[in-house]
Amino acid sequence: MFDSGFGGLTVLRELIARIPGANFVYTGDTARLPYGAKSRATVARYATEAASFLVDQGAEFLVIACNTASALALDEICDAVTVPVLGVVEPGAAEAAAHSATRECIVLATSATVESGAYAKACEKLGVRALEKACPLLVPLVEESWTDHPVARQVAQIYLDDAFHAASGQGMNPDTIVLGCTHYPLLRPLLAELAPPNTRIVDSAESVAQRVAEAFPATSTGTAGSDCSFFATDSVAKFRTLGERFLGRSIPSVQLVDLGG
Amino acid sequence: MFDSGFGGLTVLRELIARIPGANFVYTGDTARLPYGAKSRATVARYATEAASFLVDQGAEFLVIACNTASALALDEICDAVTVPVLGVVEPGAAEAAAHSATRECIVLATSATVESGAYAKACEKLGVRALEKACPLLVPLVEESWTDHPVARQVAQIYLDDAFHAASGQGMNPDTIVLGCTHYPLLRPLLAELAPPNTRIVDSAESVAQRVAEAFPATSTGTAGSDCSFFATDSVAKFRTLGERFLGRSIPSVQLVDLGG
Repeated sequence: MFDSGFGGLTVLRELIARIPGANFVYTGDTARLPYGAKSRATVARYATEAASFLVDQGAEFLVIACNTASALALDEICDAVTVPVLGVVEPGAAEAAAHSATRECIVLATSATVESGAYAKACEKLGVRALEKACPLLVPLVEESWTDHPVARQVAQIYLDDAFHAASGQGMNPDTIVLGCTHYPLLRPLLAELAPPNTRIVDSAESVAQRVAEAFPATSTGTAGSDCSFFATDSVAKFRTLGERFLGRSIPSVQLVDLGG
Repeated sequence: MFDSGFGGLTVLRELIARIPGANFVYTGDTARLPYGAKSRATVARYATEAASFLVDQGAEFLVIACNTASALALDEICDAVTVPVLGVVEPGAAEAAAHSATRECIVLATSATVESGAYAKACEKLGVRALEKACPLLVPLVEESWTDHPVARQVAQIYLDDAFHAASGQGMNPDTIVLGCTHYPLLRPLLAELAPPNTRIVDSAESVAQRVAEAFPATSTGTAGSDCSFFATDSVAKFRTLGERFLGRSIPSVQLVDLGG
């Protein structure tokens, strides 16, 4: 698994629960994060470096847990490695399509993901119309641990109001919100509370975990525990501390890796 | 001049005004920003790469306009190049010392700058006691252009209350606030409004510009205009657009540079 930082650990948490026999290698590019406001060329370069590193580590299946990298650079990553690659955008869109009655959804994501239009394209292929809303303050709020703070409440309400107002202005009636960034699941209770009643919230982490579990039926021995290795490009101490909040369990050791910058 | 991104352009703006005959080369490490939550080792590596690049470009005097790089890596940068190097921490502390009547100040800065304790040490040398307050949401708020937004007002008030409350708890009576991050000058009107009455706000950008102007008396011809070159490690289009807000004038062209990652 690869992510720009810690957010992908929400995906890993789901994977560990669903594929108990599998071994996981997680790499967070913490020295160069965040990706959410960077260009396609830069994100593609970083993501392909990380993907090649993971394959060198023996990865047989690559999960791009970072929405921005999935949205901007999935083709480049697939070209760079010979193992199967799964991003988070298409599974997230599929989950929205599976549940939306109105066939219209809101996607909350980083600026770069929104600018790429990747979620809108993936949804459109599945007959769902998506309105994408950039929410650049949500990641810093999560990293400040203000997930249930009055400021987070106010910011989330502003973004949701903007998104639903824009959707309404386009004659849309969205009944589903896709969390298009791996930091956002930590804000899910708040978003659920502030969204219009009966809005379904779709977390890409769950959809991706389901998809990976389907690809690995044989490894689900049911009894063996998973072995997890963690690599980070910046401070391993910080990765352990902050990462445990996202993973929901302790991270005994992290190795420092240089991906080329 | 070097900064992790655009914030250092507030320093360049001051420099252009004070040293009209000088030529400036500015490098923003936009592909790897922000530095404010990264480790000393990573920030030192990035900053020395940028410093060497600028000297290769012909720089005769290096201004580290990034507070985080100045706080964490000034020694490493000085070791890496043979030209004079000026960071923003010491001039900011000197400005506070020149004006504080109570000899006590608040420093608002990134988490990494605060953890380094660099401002407190620099102030202590000048007989001023500093309370440093990490304000991780201020940079994202500036980058969202919410500099006069109710959310920015609320966040700034929380940080200021926390800082003045902590100072009071230590028996301090600060009369000066040091803006220890180059993004913060864009929030100066808001901070001035929310701070206790008669609090002086010190902007490192002004102090650094004054210090550089003193080092370059001969180049102040008074009539010749300054020639400015800009380099960025990520999207040059985005650098132009966002950078103009910080510089306060148009940026006709930006060149892409790879500093090694």
